[in-house]
Amino acid sequence: MEEKVITLAHGAGGRQTSDVINNIFKKNFANENLTADDAAVLPMDAGKIAFTTDGFIVSPALFPGGNIGKLSICGTVNDLSCMGAKPLYLSCAFVIEEGFPIETLELIAESMAKTAKEAGVRIVAGDTKVAGKGQVDGVFITTTGIGKIQEGVNTAGDLAKPGDAVIVTGDVGRHGCTILVARDSYGIDADVTSDCAPLWDAVKTMIDTTKDIHVIRDATRGGVGTVLYEIAEQSSVGIRLEKENIPVDDKVKGVCGMLGLEPLYLACEGRLVVFAPKEHAPAIVEALRKGKYTQNAAIIGEVTKENVGKVIMKTEIGSETILPAPGGELLPRIC
Amino acid sequence: MEEKVITLAHGAGGRQTSDVINNIFKKNFANENLTADDAAVLPMDAGKIAFTTDGFIVSPALFPGGNIGKLSICGTVNDLSCMGAKPLYLSCAFVIEEGFPIETLELIAESMAKTAKEAGVRIVAGDTKVAGKGQVDGVFITTTGIGKIQEGVNTAGDLAKPGDAVIVTGDVGRHGCTILVARDSYGIDADVTSDCAPLWDAVKTMIDTTKDIHVIRDATRGGVGTVLYEIAEQSSVGIRLEKENIPVDDKVKGVCGMLGLEPLYLACEGRLVVFAPKEHAPAIVEALRKGKYTQNAAIIGEVTKENVGKVIMKTEIGSETILPAPGGELLPRIC
Repeated sequence: MEEKVITLAHGAGGRQTSDVINNIFKKNFANENLTADDAAVLPMDAGKIAFTTDGFIVSPALFPGGNIGKLSICGTVNDLSCMGAKPLYLSCAFVIEEGFPIETLELIAESMAKTAKEAGVRIVAGDTKVAGKGQVDGVFITTTGIGKIQEGVNTAGDLAKPGDAVIVTGDVGRHGCTILVARDSYGIDADVTSDCAPLWDAVKTMIDTTKDIHVIRDATRGGVGTVLYEIAEQSSVGIRLEKENIPVDDKVKGVCGMLGLEPLYLACEGRLVVFAPKEHAPAIVEALRKGKYTQNAAIIGEVTKENVGKVIMKTEIGSETILPAPGGELLPRIC
Repeated sequence: MEEKVITLAHGAGGRQTSDVINNIFKKNFANENLTADDAAVLPMDAGKIAFTTDGFIVSPALFPGGNIGKLSICGTVNDLSCMGAKPLYLSCAFVIEEGFPIETLELIAESMAKTAKEAGVRIVAGDTKVAGKGQVDGVFITTTGIGKIQEGVNTAGDLAKPGDAVIVTGDVGRHGCTILVARDSYGIDADVTSDCAPLWDAVKTMIDTTKDIHVIRDATRGGVGTVLYEIAEQSSVGIRLEKENIPVDDKVKGVCGMLGLEPLYLACEGRLVVFAPKEHAPAIVEALRKGKYTQNAAIIGEVTKENVGKVIMKTEIGSETILPAPGGELLPRIC
């Protein structure tokens, strides 16, 4: 690229748009399905597919443990994975602010390509728009994914049942904590990194252990606490947590302690919440602990018939409290 | 909705996010495939699908003849249609500015639902993010679509051949002209409306007439002129236009005359450029002229062996000029 920053011409659909597409996106995303036309042409077997979209507006765009590009791949890969679907194809649509450094855009694209490769997914279609200075803050990316739902897997938010164990695949709240510290608005200096990671391998590990899994959700905005409340409502059940079993990184605990935050409500970007019959839970956790991103997997609670729609937490000293229902603005532009 | 405007809490993933999703999006988009989970689950036959994404950042968001919502459905429906694919499923991801009027968001969602219904496509997945005041200008929408490529259809940008006729499905430059006038920056008052329309029916009409169609492109950013240059390059051919055969609305002509603009470079949002063997062209045009959005379809030129990569225009007085190659910023945030 001749230019150092994005200009409005890069979004006008002409020669300069082609420059960005060829020199940044095609260069990084090259694969045999990547389209040069209005749409990618993809072969499909008969069966069920999963289809999901997510917009990413995280600020700052670069943070310890990742950047908006890596996040945009992980987020959509993980949403597909949660449906028991092997991620196959992604599209990505960029809205970029006039004046955005091309070097940073390249870094983001490289990171997307690397993460897509790790997740075994192909970026096959895209779009690039440029908005004027001050009309969009930096870069926003929307990724959309198609995955193939694996035979015999049937997970959904309304399938949790009394007697299910509640599993998390690792320590909670790290992404939210990282963004909070990176924004520097609290003057806290802590060496926290985002948990941002693609989780298809983790899901595959679980369904290879047992197909009898009721719910898989990735805990992003709103954290594990929000997911638990959603499932409690959708499945009309209660949830009971054992606080001492919830894995939380010591540094995250420290930051949360200082600011009076509950790690269960801080976003994760590489953690799944899983509901499966109690008898399968130990085998699932054991298998997960061998995985790259799931070494701290743990059973953190169980599903109950009583307390429908509520999440009860048993503290270390044995008392029981109702986890407050999620709501309000915790931290804007977390993802 | 209790509130009158979007707040950061509407994007936090908790209760208020659910309010927006339930009261605005689900209410309008309801269908049996719309997901309440991380991804929509869709049945698929074996075969080839088309997959495409587009970000929409048009300013102003409401304009004569449409709004960003209608545009976001048409744009993706038309990209699928251009591949000979019947549009089946759409996802939509919103980024909304804090303070955005909920009434306007409702109007946009209603318009999306209406256009999706007309196009025969289902909105099955979505995402809602909110950015702070001044971090995004109004509302941006990214739509992504899946369509089923019809048996026997094979269109692509590199398939134009010498001897092909070049067809446009209606008068050119209306969307771009409308946005230009709506922005009011030139002080021009003209009663122009956008051509924004879903075009699957138009494509179906053509492929029902003949499967022997080489290229179908929708002329959006950069207009018909940019599409012609893209095809000339991708297919390594020349293109020769007859200026007097290019349909241009009188009001668009007037505005372009005043501002010294070429209508061929103004965006359309409901026009296709079609390359097909000369012998099929009259039947294609005749069939199109019976359609709702294609009554002004016309043969505007032909593909030549000579002048590879160039577009030559024969003017009304018989002289020939090279249409300037597209480039630079014509009008930002046109779509």
